[in-house]
Amino acid sequence: MDSGTGQVSTPSTLPYYVAFSQLLGLTVVAMTGAWLGLYRGGIAWESTLQFNVHPLCMVIGLIFLQGDALLVYRVFRKEAKRTTKVLHGLLHVFAFIISLVGLVAVFDYHRKMGYADLYSLHSWCGILVFALYIVQWLVGFSFFLFPGASFSLRSRYRPQHVFFGAAIFVLSVGAALLGLKEALLFKLGAAYGALGPEAALANALGVLLLSFAAAVLYVLAQAGWRRPAQAEEQALSMDFRSLAGGDSPGSQ
Amino acid sequence: MDSGTGQVSTPSTLPYYVAFSQLLGLTVVAMTGAWLGLYRGGIAWESTLQFNVHPLCMVIGLIFLQGDALLVYRVFRKEAKRTTKVLHGLLHVFAFIISLVGLVAVFDYHRKMGYADLYSLHSWCGILVFALYIVQWLVGFSFFLFPGASFSLRSRYRPQHVFFGAAIFVLSVGAALLGLKEALLFKLGAAYGALGPEAALANALGVLLLSFAAAVLYVLAQAGWRRPAQAEEQALSMDFRSLAGGDSPGSQ
Repeated sequence: MDSGTGQVSTPSTLPYYVAFSQLLGLTVVAMTGAWLGLYRGGIAWESTLQFNVHPLCMVIGLIFLQGDALLVYRVFRKEAKRTTKVLHGLLHVFAFIISLVGLVAVFDYHRKMGYADLYSLHSWCGILVFALYIVQWLVGFSFFLFPGASFSLRSRYRPQHVFFGAAIFVLSVGAALLGLKEALLFKLGAAYGALGPEAALANALGVLLLSFAAAVLYVLAQAGWRRPAQAEEQALSMDFRSLAGGDSPGSQ
Repeated sequence: MDSGTGQVSTPSTLPYYVAFSQLLGLTVVAMTGAWLGLYRGGIAWESTLQFNVHPLCMVIGLIFLQGDALLVYRVFRKEAKRTTKVLHGLLHVFAFIISLVGLVAVFDYHRKMGYADLYSLHSWCGILVFALYIVQWLVGFSFFLFPGASFSLRSRYRPQHVFFGAAIFVLSVGAALLGLKEALLFKLGAAYGALGPEAALANALGVLLLSFAAAVLYVLAQAGWRRPAQAEEQALSMDFRSLAGGDSPGSQ
């Protein structure tokens, strides 16, 4: 593992952990699709299958893409900071749009079916995580992408951004597990106890969701795997100018 | 916030965050008791109320006490390392025993009632977290409490111990939320949608469980709040002897 002294090298085992996390993430997406296709009749917008848009979009948006957005600074180590930052923001844009579609799908489905909204623990956690995600977006954007924030403000906010980013990701996975459980219990009821094929597949999906979260967080938690500052960024930080790849305050 | 330069001072805002986490943790335990007392008939070992021993013990053991065990190194900053370590271990002993009672209760209840074991996502996550907890216990004990491990081995293992400790704690909270959801859906079924008093109380308990976890992890995540090494520990580490407060390899 590298010592993080400013040389842009890649720690030798990092690519394997990242590849493993991607394998887990793609398996989670594929398995969610398989569950909805095999046991829930597939996906459509204009029928009762509209509900199924919800789990698929939330898993792709708030779990797979959000998780990958967190990994960007570990994976892209040699690119300019601005490029990495834009990719981080873009992945979060896709995550936000796709999960918004998933949210609209379930509210629209509830409205058509006359079901109550926002009564379950899953919905409470889901709305909490989505609200926190929007706040994190707005605050993150104004500190790191908008060119007005000073270097010292950014440095003080960065650890908070990282902590809340990881917390929102974990909470997303927790909300997904609650939703999966709810979908199983509503449909299977006492038959859940027989652990039929749908229950086994969905339980395995739940464990895989946890494994993807653990793999992403493990990569994030390794201090030696952080993206080292590049030479020009160090020079900029000594100038007390922005770390954001060259945009000085007011350069718009 | 202190700069962590070896002086044993307490960061000025740390006590407030710790106090807030304890308020949340105690509220979680009290609310679990209130939920079981008001809506589930209370607690006993020799009747169908035996089931209720399970959530109460798991919340006290694997959530409140486990969370507090993680905070020990942030709270006890001026005591000898050995004292802090023993307290960390003791809290984990209590957490382990109490959650074991909770596990025995639910398996015994299932046996008496003829219910299937280990079919639900809650039970899969619960067994996974308990197995990981035992592994973490055994590995942690052999590295940090048994006097044989060298200073360099301990230093290399420490970040893994910290990561897996936090991960197991988060997974415990996730398993608790799944169990709470299961208990609500099995009893209330479609009536859950009316968000009656039990559902509202249990949902609020779920959100409080998440808040307790977030508060504990926030305290752990602040780099400036780590327990600074004390003078005699630094001297020992320079000697390549153990950091464990004086026990050199083989001192038994």
